Amino acid sequence: MTRTINITPSALLSEIADIGTDPVRGGYSRPVFSAPEQQLNQWFINKATSLGLEVEQDRNGIFWAWWDTPSKERTNAIGTGSHLDSVPGGGNFDGPLGVVSALSAVAALKNEGFEPSRPIAVMVFPEEEGSRFGLACLSSRLATGAVPPEKVRTLTDPEGISYAEAAEAAGFDHSTIGADTEGLSRLAQFVELHIEQGKGLIDLGQPVAIAGTILGHGRWHVLIKGTGDHAGTTRMQDRQDPTVVGAHIVSEVREEGQSVDEARATVGRFEVTPGGTNVIASQVDLWIDFRHRDDETTRAIVERITQRAKQLAQAEGCEIRINEESFSPTVHFDNTLREEMKSVLSDAPVLDTGAGHDAGILSTHVPTGMLFVRNPSGTSHSPAEFAEPEDVDTGALRLADVLRYLSL
Amino acid sequence: MTRTINITPSALLSEIADIGTDPVRGGYSRPVFSAPEQQLNQWFINKATSLGLEVEQDRNGIFWAWWDTPSKERTNAIGTGSHLDSVPGGGNFDGPLGVVSALSAVAALKNEGFEPSRPIAVMVFPEEEGSRFGLACLSSRLATGAVPPEKVRTLTDPEGISYAEAAEAAGFDHSTIGADTEGLSRLAQFVELHIEQGKGLIDLGQPVAIAGTILGHGRWHVLIKGTGDHAGTTRMQDRQDPTVVGAHIVSEVREEGQSVDEARATVGRFEVTPGGTNVIASQVDLWIDFRHRDDETTRAIVERITQRAKQLAQAEGCEIRINEESFSPTVHFDNTLREEMKSVLSDAPVLDTGAGHDAGILSTHVPTGMLFVRNPSGTSHSPAEFAEPEDVDTGALRLADVLRYLSL
Repeated sequence: MTRTINITPSALLSEIADIGTDPVRGGYSRPVFSAPEQQLNQWFINKATSLGLEVEQDRNGIFWAWWDTPSKERTNAIGTGSHLDSVPGGGNFDGPLGVVSALSAVAALKNEGFEPSRPIAVMVFPEEEGSRFGLACLSSRLATGAVPPEKVRTLTDPEGISYAEAAEAAGFDHSTIGADTEGLSRLAQFVELHIEQGKGLIDLGQPVAIAGTILGHGRWHVLIKGTGDHAGTTRMQDRQDPTVVGAHIVSEVREEGQSVDEARATVGRFEVTPGGTNVIASQVDLWIDFRHRDDETTRAIVERITQRAKQLAQAEGCEIRINEESFSPTVHFDNTLREEMKSVLSDAPVLDTGAGHDAGILSTHVPTGMLFVRNPSGTSHSPAEFAEPEDVDTGALRLADVLRYLSL
Repeated sequence: MTRTINITPSALLSEIADIGTDPVRGGYSRPVFSAPEQQLNQWFINKATSLGLEVEQDRNGIFWAWWDTPSKERTNAIGTGSHLDSVPGGGNFDGPLGVVSALSAVAALKNEGFEPSRPIAVMVFPEEEGSRFGLACLSSRLATGAVPPEKVRTLTDPEGISYAEAAEAAGFDHSTIGADTEGLSRLAQFVELHIEQGKGLIDLGQPVAIAGTILGHGRWHVLIKGTGDHAGTTRMQDRQDPTVVGAHIVSEVREEGQSVDEARATVGRFEVTPGGTNVIASQVDLWIDFRHRDDETTRAIVERITQRAKQLAQAEGCEIRINEESFSPTVHFDNTLREEMKSVLSDAPVLDTGAGHDAGILSTHVPTGMLFVRNPSGTSHSPAEFAEPEDVDTGALRLADVLRYLSL
């Protein structure tokens, strides 16, 4: 068991604590291809290089920082890492903790003189949150072929800038993005460490958990068209107000989310057009985020919400269109890898998560697993997310134990 | 009775039909101090001058285009006109119709050789909609002293630009804005023609109506703070989601609006922060617009909504603050002027309106009245608002009749 840590993850986190702070929302906004994200990438390259790792960026923008074996052959490797981008107004742990813990674990293993028999790659995946172009785990979806490159190039951010335009502005060559089975085939296994995003470890009194599943997860865009009108002159009975329909749908989503155990049902984006105080809206766009361990349950509930939404729209005289933007079935992480991790971390409980991760996307091509570090706030995607430095150190040490075991 | 019209309002409207079109929302966006609004002002100056009127802009930005009497004394005048600015994505009638009808009426009276015994002023009031700085009828409120100039200077638009900054950028001297009782005292009466913003004239089969009252009107800002969190990991029972509270309030506002006759209750602005699909919001800002002929009823209903909103917020564990942004009591237009207009327009019905107008604000200082022109769409604040060219001509002719009668 690794007992000493020479470069703590907390020290590394504090090195990037000033990058991408968001003066309006609080916390951090670090979208892909932004100046803060490019600063973080450069910081990663410098830090990995200073640890003796050789850094490459593949054609989907994923960084691989290699700890080679004497043979220099980059096959049968153990991957570990996470992402550096954030949601708008997020914290400094969701993403970066997995990257700095990987660097810290490698430093600790090197410090104790360990020499891996298989290469280890510390990895950074861009646009994991999907907060700029609306598609989470963008780079791992590209690499696994889960999304075609021509679709990615035309995705636009809230300002109407396309992925292709943003890439060009940032000096990233997007001409060769796309499925990269050859690159991924270099990995034998992949382990992502992440801050826990719920209260599981608090309730259990443990610092570190091993992932069981990622809840199945879908996003639906609801477009409601009514009749734009004057708020003062239009009688209540003459209105076709999409805001009223949208509000009922929000209530419906909440109720359905509470109707089954361990579901997650959210409307976090609700846009009113034109959005004037004295104007009955002509259009509302809202997005439903729904997650559950059982994909059939998700399908059934979303179908109920859809039917109810159509009834509500019809009763108000509005038109409605509901479009599935993405659906990711429940991910069951690799059993063999989980048993290997359990044998090293015998005290660690196994917990499901409701959050998507690159490790989940990669699981279709590579045996993957995850570790979670206790988060006393129980929250993430918020400046309030937090981990005690002691737990952060424990996470990096346990990740080092796993890497040592897998690369013995 | 004026029988011929030499310059039709429709022809004048088509001259400005390309100014300030909004490619995103459709219709027109013509906020105060914008390039389109300045183009409209220049168009007005040119057009009024070509009719032989002498144009001045007062210190609150209001245009006065004078049809003088031989004495050139500008007292005891008849004012008429409206505004050229629009809500975001509005139509070409709400505002401009009153301006072009006034110009057209003057042209018709001049064409028949009429010579007024009192001066007539065709007027344009900036920022009537309050769509840029949030305060409707801004210039008439300044002129009547209903809002202090130092408050106006610090009002900000959605991009954070203050009134003072926007004025300076547009080359408008804001150092002398404020109460202008001397300027207003030049008016003996003021008549504003406006497109109808409801279905009253359609139901009655009449082209033109005389205004009765303007419904009392208030705006309330509701701020709800919850806990920003991850949409996939936060259990339903652990949430403090301000979007759910806001949605219930929207439903509540609708129900209360339907609970009394002839109320108008609207939420047309609903803003979610941070607004990510996979993020439980930390804050919702929404605005309630409520109008009723009886101010006591308005007060009672808004109080009920307030109490219910507080209960809803408490049940969700959210904080809430409700702030009255404005309250304008019901306006009863001048009785004498209304009787004078009735004597000229014997067929015209008398209709209330739920919309605020500069004629309402001015009514505290000047006897004012209004004319409405039939709108087959029944809507306004929308590109759908419309009037048949025949009704538009009739409106201008009836306004000419009123002006002739008042200035005989």
